[in-house]
Amino acid sequence: MDSRLNIVTLGVQDLDKAIQFYRDGLGWPLSKASVGDFAIFRLSTGTALALYPRDLLAIDANVKDRGGFGGITLAQIVDTKEEVDLVLSQAVKSGGSILKSARKADWGGYSGYFADPDGHPWEVAWNPYLQLKQGNLVLPD
Amino acid sequence: MDSRLNIVTLGVQDLDKAIQFYRDGLGWPLSKASVGDFAIFRLSTGTALALYPRDLLAIDANVKDRGGFGGITLAQIVDTKEEVDLVLSQAVKSGGSILKSARKADWGGYSGYFADPDGHPWEVAWNPYLQLKQGNLVLPD
Repeated sequence: MDSRLNIVTLGVQDLDKAIQFYRDGLGWPLSKASVGDFAIFRLSTGTALALYPRDLLAIDANVKDRGGFGGITLAQIVDTKEEVDLVLSQAVKSGGSILKSARKADWGGYSGYFADPDGHPWEVAWNPYLQLKQGNLVLPD
Repeated sequence: MDSRLNIVTLGVQDLDKAIQFYRDGLGWPLSKASVGDFAIFRLSTGTALALYPRDLLAIDANVKDRGGFGGITLAQIVDTKEEVDLVLSQAVKSGGSILKSARKADWGGYSGYFADPDGHPWEVAWNPYLQLKQGNLVLPD
C-alpha cells in the first residue's frame, strides 16, 4: 500500500456553514470537483480536505457515531510564534472557537488549538524541531 | 491562513501496535523526526501522518473523549478497482479490519473501508471523476 493520504473528510452538521468557514473565513480554495453534498478543497500541502454531512459520512464508512471527538487532530505548522497567534485569531473571526489558547509547549514549541464550526480540532504550532519548506514539512528519513 | 494541512495525528491505544500496522504492515516510512510517544510518517502525498497516545492527544487538544468515531475519515484514491481490493486485503493481513467491503458506489466509483487497529476509518476508492498524477490528486480550481 503506497504511503498516500489523498483526502481527509470532515463530517459536518451544516455544509453551507462549514464551507463558509473554510472558504470565506480561512480563504481556502474550494475545488470545482465539489459535487452535491461533497465539498473538496485543494490544499497547497497535497492532501485534500473535504466536507460531507457527518451522518452520511458515518453511514458511508459503516461506523456508529455517538458524536464528539474521534481521536484525530489536524495540524498546521507555521514559521513563527506570532503566526500561531494570527492564525488562531483568524479562525475565531471566521466562526471557529479556541479549544486551547496558544502557549509555550513542554516539547519546546508554541502551540494552540481551535475548533472549526463542527468541533474538529486544529492545532496551530510553531515547532523548532520541524523544518518547513514553502509551507511543506521536510521530514528526515 | 494558508491552505495547508501539515499533520494528521491519529490517537492510538497501543503505540507499538499502531507503528507495527503502518510501518511493518503497510510498509510506510517512519521518520527519524519521531520522538518519545510521537511517531511520524513521511507520506508521498505531502501531509504527514502521526501517531500519538489517544488519551494524551485529547488532553493536548483540550477535548473530552468518549471514544468512538469523531466524524473524520481518511482516504486513499487508487488507479483501479483491482487496487482497491488489493489494498483492503493488505490492510487486513496487517492487522486492520474491514468496515465495509469493496463495492460499486452509487456515485459511480468502487470503494471500501478498513479500520486501522484503533478503529480509524480509511476509505480506499477508485474514483473515475478524480484525477491522480503519480499518486497525488489533481483537483481543478
